[in-house]
Amino acid sequence: MPVTLINVFVVPKDKEDEFVKWWQDVKADITKQPGFISGKFHRSIKPGSRFNFINVAIWDNEDVYWKAYDKSVTPMKAKLEQLGVEMTPALYHVAFEY
Amino acid sequence: MPVTLINVFVVPKDKEDEFVKWWQDVKADITKQPGFISGKFHRSIKPGSRFNFINVAIWDNEDVYWKAYDKSVTPMKAKLEQLGVEMTPALYHVAFEY
Repeated sequence: MPVTLINVFVVPKDKEDEFVKWWQDVKADITKQPGFISGKFHRSIKPGSRFNFINVAIWDNEDVYWKAYDKSVTPMKAKLEQLGVEMTPALYHVAFEY
Repeated sequence: MPVTLINVFVVPKDKEDEFVKWWQDVKADITKQPGFISGKFHRSIKPGSRFNFINVAIWDNEDVYWKAYDKSVTPMKAKLEQLGVEMTPALYHVAFEY
């Protein structure tokens, strides 16, 4: 059963461009992972938004997601710490499509 | 230019079912608004997730979104307050689709 990974980011104002640039490498790696389906990386329109970046990605199932997560989490956490970025990832099911 | 509304909710554990039931009425109203395109209402898989519900909806443009928001915000805020729900809505553009 497909799952949706939603990762809510709080990125310091002065690190936004560096974060976006870094994310382009991350996404190149994610798309190669078995079980990855599709993703959308969102940037808030208003400068003062609390959550200025939100990633929404669909995976075949929970199992393939965690396999990919385990491979990428260590380097990812190091970079996020360096940038001072707060991330809150979680897995979701779609309760309603409308 | 289409915009994506992402609304991040923190719903008290004991109010989740009531919130989901209420959201079914909200979504029936949203889909009637001019400029609404599509939406996905997500529920977290793990019980302890910080953000247990996240709504992602696409609108034709910012203008139609705010018109719909102005119409629905007052009754919505009253209900959310009664349920003790915290919501963080913001508008986004898709920076990358992958």
